[in-house]
Amino acid sequence: MTRERLYLYDTTLRDGQQTQGVQFSTAEKVQIATALDALGVDYIEGGWPGANPTDSAFFDAAPQTRARLTAFGMTKRAGRSAGNDEVLAAVMNAGTQTVCLVGKAHDYHVTEALGITLEENLANIGASIAHVVAQGREALFDAEHFFDGYRDNPDYALAACRAAMEAGARWVVLCDTNGGALPADVGRIVAEVIAAGIPGDRLGIHTHNDTENAVACTLAAVDAGARQVQGTLNGLGERCGNANLTSLIPTLLLKEPYASRFATGVTFEALAGLTRTSRMLDDILNRVPTRQAPYVGASAFAHKAGLHASAIVKNPATYEHIDPAQVGNARIIPMSNQAGQSNLRKRLADAGLTVAPKDPALGRILDRIKAREDEGYSYDTAQASFELLAREELGQLPAFFEVKRYKVTVERRKNKYDRMVSLSEAVVVVKVDGEKRLSVSESLDESGSDRGPVNALAKALAKDLGQYSAVIDDMRLVDFKVRITQGGTEAVTRVIIDSEDGKGRRWSTVGVSANIVDASFEALLDAIRWKLIRDVRR
Amino acid sequence: MTRERLYLYDTTLRDGQQTQGVQFSTAEKVQIATALDALGVDYIEGGWPGANPTDSAFFDAAPQTRARLTAFGMTKRAGRSAGNDEVLAAVMNAGTQTVCLVGKAHDYHVTEALGITLEENLANIGASIAHVVAQGREALFDAEHFFDGYRDNPDYALAACRAAMEAGARWVVLCDTNGGALPADVGRIVAEVIAAGIPGDRLGIHTHNDTENAVACTLAAVDAGARQVQGTLNGLGERCGNANLTSLIPTLLLKEPYASRFATGVTFEALAGLTRTSRMLDDILNRVPTRQAPYVGASAFAHKAGLHASAIVKNPATYEHIDPAQVGNARIIPMSNQAGQSNLRKRLADAGLTVAPKDPALGRILDRIKAREDEGYSYDTAQASFELLAREELGQLPAFFEVKRYKVTVERRKNKYDRMVSLSEAVVVVKVDGEKRLSVSESLDESGSDRGPVNALAKALAKDLGQYSAVIDDMRLVDFKVRITQGGTEAVTRVIIDSEDGKGRRWSTVGVSANIVDASFEALLDAIRWKLIRDVRR
Repeated sequence: MTRERLYLYDTTLRDGQQTQGVQFSTAEKVQIATALDALGVDYIEGGWPGANPTDSAFFDAAPQTRARLTAFGMTKRAGRSAGNDEVLAAVMNAGTQTVCLVGKAHDYHVTEALGITLEENLANIGASIAHVVAQGREALFDAEHFFDGYRDNPDYALAACRAAMEAGARWVVLCDTNGGALPADVGRIVAEVIAAGIPGDRLGIHTHNDTENAVACTLAAVDAGARQVQGTLNGLGERCGNANLTSLIPTLLLKEPYASRFATGVTFEALAGLTRTSRMLDDILNRVPTRQAPYVGASAFAHKAGLHASAIVKNPATYEHIDPAQVGNARIIPMSNQAGQSNLRKRLADAGLTVAPKDPALGRILDRIKAREDEGYSYDTAQASFELLAREELGQLPAFFEVKRYKVTVERRKNKYDRMVSLSEAVVVVKVDGEKRLSVSESLDESGSDRGPVNALAKALAKDLGQYSAVIDDMRLVDFKVRITQGGTEAVTRVIIDSEDGKGRRWSTVGVSANIVDASFEALLDAIRWKLIRDVRR
Repeated sequence: MTRERLYLYDTTLRDGQQTQGVQFSTAEKVQIATALDALGVDYIEGGWPGANPTDSAFFDAAPQTRARLTAFGMTKRAGRSAGNDEVLAAVMNAGTQTVCLVGKAHDYHVTEALGITLEENLANIGASIAHVVAQGREALFDAEHFFDGYRDNPDYALAACRAAMEAGARWVVLCDTNGGALPADVGRIVAEVIAAGIPGDRLGIHTHNDTENAVACTLAAVDAGARQVQGTLNGLGERCGNANLTSLIPTLLLKEPYASRFATGVTFEALAGLTRTSRMLDDILNRVPTRQAPYVGASAFAHKAGLHASAIVKNPATYEHIDPAQVGNARIIPMSNQAGQSNLRKRLADAGLTVAPKDPALGRILDRIKAREDEGYSYDTAQASFELLAREELGQLPAFFEVKRYKVTVERRKNKYDRMVSLSEAVVVVKVDGEKRLSVSESLDESGSDRGPVNALAKALAKDLGQYSAVIDDMRLVDFKVRITQGGTEAVTRVIIDSEDGKGRRWSTVGVSANIVDASFEALLDAIRWKLIRDVRR
């Protein structure tokens, strides 16, 4: 059976940059474009040349891509020719193979926002698209506010699309600019547009997530016949974001009726890199990845309910709609007080610990986890601390070193310039290979700012561990989360620390205490011990 | 026109608790149930009594609600009567008006997971529901894996539903347990179920967000005739979460065709509290609220694109699908603070501070809030710290006392019994009425346990404030939240402290610093100053 071609158009670098708090550098845009090309999208919208200095710089620095690099702009203003519109000229000057121009399709916006006649607007659309095509470029027309416009004045909204199509636009993109359209409306209207003579294989769909329906509106448009899908990685975009390609791509490739019906430029091999691509974008933005993100989130294949977890062990398909490996993600069966021994063995195996069924250590490990959860610990994410606990029960935890004591001082006072300043200092005493070692560190960073008692403690602890100091040299603390929770009848502090090393490993550890410094110290200790287990030659 | 009744069923306390990393305390469950009831949902599923100690405790402590409190459980096991199934008995013993039992609707799960015959499963469903009804309770049947089951064996999936309905279930809830069903399938299948004789006004829909379509699948089911909608606040839930009621409720109340067609228990007044309810849940979970969340996110009505922002000033409807005030949210236009000033005056009035329009202090207060938010502060919940900041700009903040310096020591070492113990000690130096006063406290509570450095600091600070000590004597710290956030380019710690006094007041203050002890100290100081403003006779 021949599958129809469905085109993917990414606008992470343009609409995605409209996300509050997002501003890509040119180098970051290059990195993202390269990743998008490797993923296999058909179009990469790079920005609006002339409107934004980094956008212009990106087109100068753009990498060679198989995907069509696209410059975004708007249709020419009234009262001048397309060739004499300097805004449009800046867009053309980026020299891209493809150009996408946004124009008004909603009559209200033409008369109110632009203040021109409806006829002038149609003429501007036609002339602008014709200008792009005459210069040998592929042209797209973004019909802004199409769905709102179609509800108010369907004839005019269609006329705007026809003006673009007749001028030679390869694609007319129906945009739900306000994000308020619902899937049933989008499906019905796209079908009506096709019935009115604009063929589906020239129609694109561009939706926003203001009602949490951007993905569904996109699928409804595809169901109705649209053959180009616009969106962004991780659903970045103005307000609530654009349609999320990170969710749409696996749905289109893996799920019916789409998988059998359509072909895209994304291979199954590239799809297996999707989770990594999504996390890379979060890294660039310095965002914590959304755990619950469909397909790529750390929790997307995490099975917490006891009922589910026990069935998953028998057959993953019982509670998973796809195989997580297809999108480069992984199954997680967290320990919970409902989980049984078979889940535990699976999780131990993930940590490289093989334990026979019915080994009495399994019961002891479960009991200790249960007791610790009652104290406020949580091993859902802290896999490294879970492993250490299990190793202890299995007699597979080397001692490495012993902490004899520590002392941290936090002080705030006026300095000689009469400004209040704070400073922390930590002393740690450890015993390594029979020898006692004292280390002291303070909490100031390179710029002389106080980073607090946990920072001082982490530095003092790492400072002199004898033979182990070299082993942990490439380790660094990358995240630190604090939560006040219940431990028995008292409020306690739970600290989760994420660490990384030079080998690209990343691991999480947990500490709990009524004393926040002590909870942090416990998580730090676990982080170091986990690393030593991996890298100390014995 | 008479509108049809659509019922809202919240499962934040049950399925929401399956979110990785989420574990509510009983007090938190009570707080959430109270908020759900104020919102106006029809059913509050409180948990699985017997399966989880905090769930059982919650039903004992449950608040009086207008909404029907619902206990969740599973249909009886084979080989015993419903009356003799101790798992079911624990559910019934919670004494709720409504009981929801989950059972298998997918033939594969019956034979593989349960290991019983298809007929036995139907008998178990019927007998369990009949048992609930016979005890005078309202019964719901959650048809687990219904959509997958219907695809494999539609007759059996329907038979499971019919067994429940014929036994007297008020609602049969079609569950997409794996989250893999797409909206078009859900709509078609729900229509087929209704055509097969199960009326829409007895059908509920329960979806998961594994393809980012949970909200759309729910709407598709409602379009097809289902009249009960299940979901969670903020879309909490197993894996990628459940259908997000925080998105669904405003869509159902404000957008067509739903607004004209359906009535729910949510009033427009309650809807205006939605943003606050959503943020409250994030506070309880100590999560950073999702900026891009539909309707309630801080970015949901933020207009960054230059084109959009200028049009918004002319007419908000140009780029907004609803008025943000309808859901208690606010428009953000980065270039203008015109809207800001009237909101600010409203909030100052809430704190008892009357400021004339156009008072230049308004601009200064807005600027300081903006600058502090850039440093990592948040005044969403910390109304008391907001008031202090405003009073300072308005020249209405008495000095009371001055902190000259403090010093906290945290020490961990072996005690005389060779056990590791920790102890914190704080020294605070303040100047009150021209007189310097030194106080020292340690961190041990009545039982001799270390409560950490912040506890020691709070006690030392309150110990001797001269004439003010008597005023703050009835004050106590009731909650303490810590979050790592971004302040400029560095990670900083934000501490929010909730305090209470003998007059029944409760107030929140915020402190931010790279040093967690210092951030806590700042929030403590604000808490005391706010109390002194209220209660010092001048």
